[in-house]
Amino acid sequence: MGKELTTRAEDYSQWYNELVVKGQLADHSAVRGCMVIKPYGYALWENMRDQLDKMFKETGHVNAYFPLFVPKSLFEAEEKNAEGFAKECAIVTHYRLKSDPDNKGKLIVDPDAKLEEELIIRPTSEAIIWNTYKGWIQSYRDLPLLINQWANVVRWEMRTRLFLRTAEFLWQEGHTAHATKEEAVEETLKMLDVYAAFVEEYMAVPVIRGVKTPNERFAGAEDTYCIEALMQDGKALQAGTSHFLGQNFAKAFDVKFSDKNNKLDYVWATSWGVSTRLIGALIMAHSDDQGLVMPPRIAPLQVVIVPIYKGEEGKMLVDNKAIEIMDGLKKLGIRVKYDDNDNARPGWKFAEHELKGVPVRIALGMRDLENNVVELARRDTKEKFTVSLDGIENYIQKLLEDIQQNIYDRALAFRTEHTTEANSWEEFTSILDGKAGFVSAHWDGTAETEEKIKQESKATIRCIPLRNTHEDGKCILTGNPSTQRVLFARAY
Amino acid sequence: MGKELTTRAEDYSQWYNELVVKGQLADHSAVRGCMVIKPYGYALWENMRDQLDKMFKETGHVNAYFPLFVPKSLFEAEEKNAEGFAKECAIVTHYRLKSDPDNKGKLIVDPDAKLEEELIIRPTSEAIIWNTYKGWIQSYRDLPLLINQWANVVRWEMRTRLFLRTAEFLWQEGHTAHATKEEAVEETLKMLDVYAAFVEEYMAVPVIRGVKTPNERFAGAEDTYCIEALMQDGKALQAGTSHFLGQNFAKAFDVKFSDKNNKLDYVWATSWGVSTRLIGALIMAHSDDQGLVMPPRIAPLQVVIVPIYKGEEGKMLVDNKAIEIMDGLKKLGIRVKYDDNDNARPGWKFAEHELKGVPVRIALGMRDLENNVVELARRDTKEKFTVSLDGIENYIQKLLEDIQQNIYDRALAFRTEHTTEANSWEEFTSILDGKAGFVSAHWDGTAETEEKIKQESKATIRCIPLRNTHEDGKCILTGNPSTQRVLFARAY
Repeated sequence: MGKELTTRAEDYSQWYNELVVKGQLADHSAVRGCMVIKPYGYALWENMRDQLDKMFKETGHVNAYFPLFVPKSLFEAEEKNAEGFAKECAIVTHYRLKSDPDNKGKLIVDPDAKLEEELIIRPTSEAIIWNTYKGWIQSYRDLPLLINQWANVVRWEMRTRLFLRTAEFLWQEGHTAHATKEEAVEETLKMLDVYAAFVEEYMAVPVIRGVKTPNERFAGAEDTYCIEALMQDGKALQAGTSHFLGQNFAKAFDVKFSDKNNKLDYVWATSWGVSTRLIGALIMAHSDDQGLVMPPRIAPLQVVIVPIYKGEEGKMLVDNKAIEIMDGLKKLGIRVKYDDNDNARPGWKFAEHELKGVPVRIALGMRDLENNVVELARRDTKEKFTVSLDGIENYIQKLLEDIQQNIYDRALAFRTEHTTEANSWEEFTSILDGKAGFVSAHWDGTAETEEKIKQESKATIRCIPLRNTHEDGKCILTGNPSTQRVLFARAY
Repeated sequence: MGKELTTRAEDYSQWYNELVVKGQLADHSAVRGCMVIKPYGYALWENMRDQLDKMFKETGHVNAYFPLFVPKSLFEAEEKNAEGFAKECAIVTHYRLKSDPDNKGKLIVDPDAKLEEELIIRPTSEAIIWNTYKGWIQSYRDLPLLINQWANVVRWEMRTRLFLRTAEFLWQEGHTAHATKEEAVEETLKMLDVYAAFVEEYMAVPVIRGVKTPNERFAGAEDTYCIEALMQDGKALQAGTSHFLGQNFAKAFDVKFSDKNNKLDYVWATSWGVSTRLIGALIMAHSDDQGLVMPPRIAPLQVVIVPIYKGEEGKMLVDNKAIEIMDGLKKLGIRVKYDDNDNARPGWKFAEHELKGVPVRIALGMRDLENNVVELARRDTKEKFTVSLDGIENYIQKLLEDIQQNIYDRALAFRTEHTTEANSWEEFTSILDGKAGFVSAHWDGTAETEEKIKQESKATIRCIPLRNTHEDGKCILTGNPSTQRVLFARAY
């Protein structure tokens, strides 16, 4: 079969890379750091996108589309933001190719077609969007502006990995404008909750909501909130961020509004985004040494039916029943495929669907039919069991919800087990080098200490959890007084 | 109100430009030739995209995503394609900015961060996709490959117009791979039919299906099929194209497959695309001097309810009824909004919704309520009439279908009236300078004559209609013999 995976224990990183490619989610491309999202991976992204989009619309947002390019003069207007992204920008400098006079059939950049002003490919769209909002906002009646964009962005990363860190990636970015600080902060937290609900309820990945330290803030934000998830190797992954931008972009782009009393003030802003990186989180949170494990609610395929028969007559019998079951499942809105490909044997198909993480497999054999039963296999627990064909559709519908819940519970149990308090530097480092995971520890609140801890342990402060318990303690590194524990981890 | 439009008779081009902006569909951006698609315009695009996507999936296609960038060496591999797009390519040459030493707070392109190989921003994705397909196709079992991509592309146009011709635009591009020529040709025509069905049945714009002359072919295609629509100023607009690419890209990227007899051959290809340009076609086909006219099936908003009342008690009565009607319509899947904004008067709202082309407006007044009736207004005919509230939801559902049909019929009647046979050069030019539209005329079949006709009349051959009647005649320019009429028009 050539489908055997490196195991997690052998080489976690290699296991991940193989799984993405063999699981048919994505491929490397001819462009450095850019990936091809394959149909199976893109179908997963579509399900994630559609659900998120629904949640954005239910919370009053609308979609729009802004240019891919940001003129350099706009890009540099908000200085912190510009500084934060300057080192990873793809830059368009020319707008034409011409024939190479020295090389028939080849092309060169036409030096006469140099742009007067360079264009940055958006690494994020605050600049181009706030420059546009300037023309859309005059009065409090124009607020709030609750806009989201689904788009590709480019960040020229030096070390890339499929889904987790690619030069180009797909994402959504919400950009909202408000009349008051309170309303903007409320929006920032509301969208953090939307992200947490999506990741937990649909991706079955438990997350910690928190706020980043100033060191880890989005460039140009007043506060960055995040959701942090734990992967099976004990490393954390930032799964989404929601930024309170204060009036920074309004000031940089001179966006003012007149309030009810005709007083002019700068507009308050938020931005928030999740990306195809979430697919990396999904893979690393749930999958095992046999392959992907897809949470049913967003699985491209929820159920696969594999026929087992001999002879033409057998095939017809099994076909008829399979199609009947498939139609019944479809009526319940279940995504199901009848894998009746004659070129592959059942065993090969079983391994294939296991690798691709299809939550439920139905094996439909002739003897089973005679007994009015089928064999079901759960991908999450690998259990197999025989159930009656009577009411099979409702049984499977219920089973899919059970699987969804079980995957979540398992990930939550793993996180609980891998969240440890450390009260000294020795404890801190031995946990990180041992079972890893989140380490809850006191920190003196200074950027210097945060940086030193990072240098010495490779762990970063993932977040200060929301509604954190206050507790007097001493910083694990400096021994200086601290009022609360924060969450550390090594991270993707 | 400041909403008065230039009329079509005064200045058709100005009317169009104003309508796009005042109708809230799109705005110019700070980036030369790039537009911002506003929420109302994007909601329209979402409806179009979702319907097309459904039709692609029903015909067996799946979505995927390929990189935005094409390395120059891949871009130039298929020479005709490269030559066709070389003059309008945005080119990335650097991957980093740095602080400008002479200008505090400003950035410059870092000369040390020059790419070894320039990256072209995709103007179309044949090159990057066929380079990828090389790794995916070995045997006939891997075929057909039926993949579509929704993406942004960039073509550096010198003269741009919102939706019709922009440097960046959104589109879908299908790229399929087949084992035989026959199958590829069949796919090319099947997708042409999908486009025609979508544009006619959803956008209510009648189209002519045809094949382009060699002069007008897509760069790198063996045959380009198209659907051509007629705008209200008598100019044609190419609304979609489907290309039979032969083995050109397979040869350029060395993509071979082994057939059932283990014989190696190059793969056969098609590509097909429609873009946000369709929104331009929609606007110019249906709208009038009062604003947009949206076909109900893809209208972002199908019905708007405007309350008319005095006093708080009146408001409550009208509110209750409006919400009841709205809920009833939503149950039927109708996109409806209750416009209860207190800051605007009914007359202002009427003009606003007329401008935005909402198909049906319900005016709900207190006296109407007493009589158990409402006043409806159709956007397409501007008729107003009073109907009973009993069964109003089903009445409106039927009315929306009537409007859809009427808009189509009107556009079809216009096209019929503006399709004229010309049998001499004088007739040909006098039609073009008079009522314009499609001119059906004989042409001697040579590229030279085609080019001369274009030079002298500004009309191009839009297509040779499919299943064209064969008829002996003489070329309108040269008098040379011809066996069929082709469709000429001035075009967008």
